[in-house]
Amino acid sequence: MDRIQGYVKRVEAALQAQNFSLQPAELYEPMAYILGLGGKRLRPALSLAACELFGGASEKALMPALGIEVFHNFSLVHDDIMDEADVRRGKATVHKKWNRDIAILSGDAMLVKAYQYIAQVDSEHLPAILACFSQTALEICEGQQRDMNFESRTEVQEEEYLLMIRQKTAVLLGAALKIGALVAGASEASADSLYDFGINAGLAFQIQDDLLDAFGDPEKVGKKPGGDILQDKKTLLMIYTRQLAAKDLEFLQSQDLKGEAKVKAFGDLIIKSGARAKAEAKRDHLMQTALADLEAAHGSDEALKAELAQFAQWLSHRDR
Amino acid sequence: MDRIQGYVKRVEAALQAQNFSLQPAELYEPMAYILGLGGKRLRPALSLAACELFGGASEKALMPALGIEVFHNFSLVHDDIMDEADVRRGKATVHKKWNRDIAILSGDAMLVKAYQYIAQVDSEHLPAILACFSQTALEICEGQQRDMNFESRTEVQEEEYLLMIRQKTAVLLGAALKIGALVAGASEASADSLYDFGINAGLAFQIQDDLLDAFGDPEKVGKKPGGDILQDKKTLLMIYTRQLAAKDLEFLQSQDLKGEAKVKAFGDLIIKSGARAKAEAKRDHLMQTALADLEAAHGSDEALKAELAQFAQWLSHRDR
Repeated sequence: MDRIQGYVKRVEAALQAQNFSLQPAELYEPMAYILGLGGKRLRPALSLAACELFGGASEKALMPALGIEVFHNFSLVHDDIMDEADVRRGKATVHKKWNRDIAILSGDAMLVKAYQYIAQVDSEHLPAILACFSQTALEICEGQQRDMNFESRTEVQEEEYLLMIRQKTAVLLGAALKIGALVAGASEASADSLYDFGINAGLAFQIQDDLLDAFGDPEKVGKKPGGDILQDKKTLLMIYTRQLAAKDLEFLQSQDLKGEAKVKAFGDLIIKSGARAKAEAKRDHLMQTALADLEAAHGSDEALKAELAQFAQWLSHRDR
Repeated sequence: MDRIQGYVKRVEAALQAQNFSLQPAELYEPMAYILGLGGKRLRPALSLAACELFGGASEKALMPALGIEVFHNFSLVHDDIMDEADVRRGKATVHKKWNRDIAILSGDAMLVKAYQYIAQVDSEHLPAILACFSQTALEICEGQQRDMNFESRTEVQEEEYLLMIRQKTAVLLGAALKIGALVAGASEASADSLYDFGINAGLAFQIQDDLLDAFGDPEKVGKKPGGDILQDKKTLLMIYTRQLAAKDLEFLQSQDLKGEAKVKAFGDLIIKSGARAKAEAKRDHLMQTALADLEAAHGSDEALKAELAQFAQWLSHRDR
């Protein structure tokens, strides 16, 4: 995946070349801070890849790619306030390092900055790119609200969960790809196929995330397994366990287990009920759909297409 | 000012025709709520006026005008969280009626919705309109941050204060006018003159606001005078009082006065020092500049131009 690594490096260099030393400092320093904490830069790298896939000069996708990354970081700053999270990528979150008001306001300013980057495209493509970006941004807000709503509910249906992770995670991957394709002048149909590839790969990615949270190797994942179980999160694993072994699940829930004993007992039931296998099958089916979507996008660069396919498969089967 | 009243009515009707009954309800109900609380709808009405001033069909300015109003209401929702304000237009603020997280997230979604409305213009004008809107939105964030920074400072200079109210209040009036002009295909120079008219009228408007807060007739203003004095706000009146009578001001501040006694003593000093007269002169000078800017905009509708001039003078001399 050498070319994708190359896109990541170009995005990183372009980000570091941006000037956030502006006034008032309280507004701009948090932007530089959160963007400087690192991150995989997956989304903007996908924009560059999509642009080259359709024969575009990836230079032209660089500014909208940064817009996608700035938007992603805006959403992290505001989500961290809502989740009352103290730590992000091993460092203090913006509202912890500064305060709530600065986190709200610098987040707002990042959302506006994201639009300024997105707008730096050939004007013939601007209406379609802007429409895609705004629609995506709105869906991400909807996904975050749905996720918050799940907390106060006892039961969540599979379809509701898939809609939530689609909006909260997958649409931004889809949009990153579609916007790169539009910059290159790809047809609407091809750009949409690439969008669908991003959606389905993003869903598979999120399901793998849930699997790693419950069953990952702590040495590789970098945290103890079972965080979602301890927080009673309604992940796909729990939804499938309820579908396949409702009584066993209700019994376990009535036991008021804590800590490692809880993680062990729920983990065993997720396996025994067949929920883990069902989630793995769902993930793999989504990845097959994603690969068919990628095939349907008529890009001109077959080697890059193969690399994107390999990359998506790695994402959905990663062990860390 | 019959035509401007007519634009206000059209904006109101268009707002009420928008569908905010979308899912998830927790995201969209607060939008309908804050937009339904009323407000003068000044900014969007100015967009329609500017469009007709340059011979454009005001219908074409209606969607970007709504974008301006939705943006304004987004900023109120987030500012109310930061100011910990419980009441807005006589009703509970969004974070009071729902909660902080819903206010943050529905505010974010309103900012995105604002962009969706702004984007509904002829594509030839989209790049310039989008650039104006984003620049304005960023300046409003900067102005809010500067205003928050003033709270922890003992002294603020006149130029700093004028920059703050320019960014926090005036630029959105300027942008509302400029965007209306751009929709009509006005020249860049004329659109900029109209922008400057909005800036200077907006500054005069804000200074009148400060004057009304200190000296307004409570029967007309609808609240007791002296709110800014009681909160030790660094308004232009206080900045001028410090310029003209620093020792008297420091003496008063050392007295630890409260309530009506404080409002009376500071109000007397503002008058005696000449600060009130100086603020009135500043306001009137800004309004003269505004009228010259309006004259410089080569609009084709002289009757409407006269109405805009009359309207701006009313804004800067209103008693309520």
